[in-house]
Amino acid sequence: MTIISLLSDFGNKDPYVAEMKAVILSISLQARIIDITHEIEKFNIRMGAYVLASAAPYFPPNTVHVAVVDPGVGTKRRPIIVETRRSLYVGPDNGLLMLAAHKEQITNVYQIANPEYTLSDVSTTFHGRDIFAPAAAHLAQGKEPSDFGPAIHDYVSPEFAKPQTRDGELQGEILCIDHFGNIISNITSEDLEKTGFNKGDSLLVRLGNKTLTLQFCSAYGEVQSGAPLALIGGSNFLEVAVNQGSASAVFKAKLGEAFHVSREVSG
Amino acid sequence: MTIISLLSDFGNKDPYVAEMKAVILSISLQARIIDITHEIEKFNIRMGAYVLASAAPYFPPNTVHVAVVDPGVGTKRRPIIVETRRSLYVGPDNGLLMLAAHKEQITNVYQIANPEYTLSDVSTTFHGRDIFAPAAAHLAQGKEPSDFGPAIHDYVSPEFAKPQTRDGELQGEILCIDHFGNIISNITSEDLEKTGFNKGDSLLVRLGNKTLTLQFCSAYGEVQSGAPLALIGGSNFLEVAVNQGSASAVFKAKLGEAFHVSREVSG
Amino acid sequence: MTIISLLSDFGNKDPYVAEMKAVILSISLQARIIDITHEIEKFNIRMGAYVLASAAPYFPPNTVHVAVVDPGVGTKRRPIIVETRRSLYVGPDNGLLMLAAHKEQITNVYQIANPEYTLSDVSTTFHGRDIFAPAAAHLAQGKEPSDFGPAIHDYVSPEFAKPQTRDGELQGEILCIDHFGNIISNITSEDLEKTGFNKGDSLLVRLGNKTLTLQFCSAYGEVQSGAPLALIGGSNFLEVAVNQGSASAVFKAKLGEAFHVSREVSG
Repeated sequence: MTIISLLSDFGNKDPYVAEMKAVILSISLQARIIDITHEIEKFNIRMGAYVLASAAPYFPPNTVHVAVVDPGVGTKRRPIIVETRRSLYVGPDNGLLMLAAHKEQITNVYQIANPEYTLSDVSTTFHGRDIFAPAAAHLAQGKEPSDFGPAIHDYVSPEFAKPQTRDGELQGEILCIDHFGNIISNITSEDLEKTGFNKGDSLLVRLGNKTLTLQFCSAYGEVQSGAPLALIGGSNFLEVAVNQGSASAVFKAKLGEAFHVSREVSG
Repeated sequence: MTIISLLSDFGNKDPYVAEMKAVILSISLQARIIDITHEIEKFNIRMGAYVLASAAPYFPPNTVHVAVVDPGVGTKRRPIIVETRRSLYVGPDNGLLMLAAHKEQITNVYQIANPEYTLSDVSTTFHGRDIFAPAAAHLAQGKEPSDFGPAIHDYVSPEFAKPQTRDGELQGEILCIDHFGNIISNITSEDLEKTGFNKGDSLLVRLGNKTLTLQFCSAYGEVQSGAPLALIGGSNFLEVAVNQGSASAVFKAKLGEAFHVSREVSG
Repeated sequence: MTIISLLSDFGNKDPYVAEMKAVILSISLQARIIDITHEIEKFNIRMGAYVLASAAPYFPPNTVHVAVVDPGVGTKRRPIIVETRRSLYVGPDNGLLMLAAHKEQITNVYQIANPEYTLSDVSTTFHGRDIFAPAAAHLAQGKEPSDFGPAIHDYVSPEFAKPQTRDGELQGEILCIDHFGNIISNITSEDLEKTGFNKGDSLLVRLGNKTLTLQFCSAYGEVQSGAPLALIGGSNFLEVAVNQGSASAVFKAKLGEAFHVSREVSG
């Protein structure tokens, strides 16, 4: 019994999500379908990537995640299957899947090209139903990712999917500002460990064009009320927060701006 | 394992939808329940009928579809089961089920009258939970539609459920204007085929009191950007669209207005 | 196959609900998960309690209900399992579970304290995922409520969970005003029976600081259009309604105000 998760920007008013589920069940009646959300902001790939990367680690291994935030549907952007050490991801080749996939280590990426595994009429407007849902259902039925088409290596890997390390500085960006005002980056605890940062360290964090010196904490309460801090949030990304306050109100950060981390140089 | 789909105007805030699901599972623990949507505009039977007819064809054969948009609950409108060549539909006799059912060819319609298959206390306000959900669950358990009550023939078949053919003209109406501004009729590709229309034809389309000469296309891109066209949309209904524009803004069409199609007579 | 219901104030935009479901399925792949709603007003325990108590009676016996409206998460409020004659309830010890549980008769209440049955890292912000979801899944797998921690007796039992009887007067409060304007109390039909009230009686109802003499009816239509009445609503709570009108507009009642019932004294 395979679990198939669904994430999209389709909303819950229209028949679209049900059509995807109906297509899945027509191919794989045993599949267990779980909605992550269908209320991603229209065409907001970054937000979709963040929510997918937050939820995916809680699913059992071998889950098939289908995600559709797809402004390029009907153009030449490719439909892909991303295979990681832990899960399979199905969706458009626009970076949406990569934040989640990178956290689990990508093993292979395949283009979906085999017409045997799509609906017989593929529309130019709704690949969620016509390509991605059938692909997920066939994967749930035991097909191999390589059955769907050729392996590709030039897939889209957007800035937000992989922070860079340069001269000991970890260079990421601001991925999300949550409803508490916490400023969340695309830098994971693994990225920090690999680069040699530890809890308790004093960090230099560059947010957009401001540079802050912050303690790398384990809990909001480790600094005084109203004081800023850095910590790993519930989704395993580094964030800048203000204890009992709103970091976003204090630092006026914007989505997509730089979020760089380096060690404070005692001078 | 039977699939039961649910569609309603109940919203997702109140306990109503969960109560329907709980009643279904109390009778048929094996049933597979899939939501189509619960965000149909309050009491909008036409919109409910359109969404149901859009989604239903993607479900496997023998799905039981329960739909509840029911302004007449508690009055004399009858609860019914509609049997088609492909599926079963359960809901109020107010036309809601008929657009989907006609696409699949209706074989029988039964009134739900047997108190053995309703909850013991039937409220006057919530037949979704007290009559329709238990009926669907008993159908999933293998009961025959004829077990629920007498066959009826005077069921409600609203204008929007069946376009008329008169003197070679196919007379339908405007069912929906989607969020791209496409003007969607109740005329299916089968209606057009039966009346002898083919892709590539030049069509005379009367929308309300305007008459347009449009090419019957296979894709939006077959006409120039900004030009109008007619095509079969993703839900298998004929629509008037403007390539990369909004037909609804150009033609100012309204829901329920006439949408008639005839062949252009070369003069 | 155990049914697990979920209710929360998390909304449907964020990954939170999916994370709870993913955690449940990681422990109990067979569990049948049904959403009651995730659109309870943020932190509104009374509204959450009402919706849970409305939906719960329609679920099969032995359902595990997980409810999370939890303004005290991260403080000392305890996570609990409430065992009734019919179901199990999992959530915070803040009264949320008690309205539903009291309708079914509480047999035992246990604190969730055994770290064997929580996620290994329990956050201070998301006990729904880290404590309640795993507890429900382990219950679905056959663990006993007493396996989770010590029985407790000093659990929170808020005013709204249990109307009082004093000198023949049943003293409840206003729990909900529904979208028809019906004023719904926390007094169940069982409370009324035990106190000796019967259909047809003339009741003295004190709503806030107004006192009304109302007939205890079986249906709205038993009084004239525009006239007020008392009846047991669809969720089995006593309500004050106006036939074809809005009781809330007429009587200007507010949530949490007194809703007391006594017999009219003739003379």
